[in-house]
Amino acid sequence: MAEIFDIINNRTSYRGAYKDTKIPREHLVQIMEAGLAAPSGCNKQTTSLICVDDPIVLDKLKGMIDPPICETAPAIICVLTQKIFAYRDKCFNVQDYSAAIQNMLLAIKALGYESCWYEGHITDDDDIGGQLAKVLGVPDDYKMVCILPVGIADGQLTHAKKKSFEERAWFNKFGN
Amino acid sequence: MAEIFDIINNRTSYRGAYKDTKIPREHLVQIMEAGLAAPSGCNKQTTSLICVDDPIVLDKLKGMIDPPICETAPAIICVLTQKIFAYRDKCFNVQDYSAAIQNMLLAIKALGYESCWYEGHITDDDDIGGQLAKVLGVPDDYKMVCILPVGIADGQLTHAKKKSFEERAWFNKFGN
Repeated sequence: MAEIFDIINNRTSYRGAYKDTKIPREHLVQIMEAGLAAPSGCNKQTTSLICVDDPIVLDKLKGMIDPPICETAPAIICVLTQKIFAYRDKCFNVQDYSAAIQNMLLAIKALGYESCWYEGHITDDDDIGGQLAKVLGVPDDYKMVCILPVGIADGQLTHAKKKSFEERAWFNKFGN
Repeated sequence: MAEIFDIINNRTSYRGAYKDTKIPREHLVQIMEAGLAAPSGCNKQTTSLICVDDPIVLDKLKGMIDPPICETAPAIICVLTQKIFAYRDKCFNVQDYSAAIQNMLLAIKALGYESCWYEGHITDDDDIGGQLAKVLGVPDDYKMVCILPVGIADGQLTHAKKKSFEERAWFNKFGN
């Protein structure tokens, strides 16, 4: 298995097609366990997950996503969040699920698969996430905020162009 | 170096004392690079970092944190965020910095150090983060949202008790 820094630095957002290769359940469990191992504000564990790998359920979900994404993914992990207060009126559920997603993206890459963090696509005003959640029987106090495809890439990986280290990171004071 | 799943599953929030051992700059750079390698919504790269390892600056910052945290940490990474819109009125900066923090927590662990995600402590109503940001010359359009100590633990690690997998993760529908 690749070294953790290689995984962190080579992970990329893959939006292409996937090979028609089923993902072993043990890998999907390992990926979800990685997600649940992320820290959460005051340990409130506001993040839950549903992995869809049943072809019938997958097709149903994919048919509801317009414009389509994840069309060829053999598995999709749906990320759910609950607005549980950590203390007073403070809620860290966005931080919680983001850390869980990042762990899963790394776990997916480590096992030889690709993925992409699809959030805005399903949380926009047309509330695709809410419709998907209904199909999966998700109670009203959970919100589906992200879907992660899991599969072997059947296309080229591309890396987003990023600013240099010197433009975003410094020592002991802001700027160089 | 430990395997990525060991790092993900053994990482814990460490709030104890640190050994008085300076952290090599190359390690700090590697940790910050890991943070900046995280994805960001529409690649807006809303996260920036300041690592403080100068003892004089460190002491100044530590003296401003009440109640005290990170008192013995030989280095502290300060996480800054900018509210840059990804599209329309949508901003994913919380997701962005959370993914960056999670990458850094894993990188810190991978290099043999410990850390803790301190966010609520510095973003609460007394705005400690804002005061720290002033000392570091951070412009007003950046907000300091988190500090991460980096150091070798001089105490016992503890693991937060978590719900079981079956209570938080399922296949193909919500619940078992």
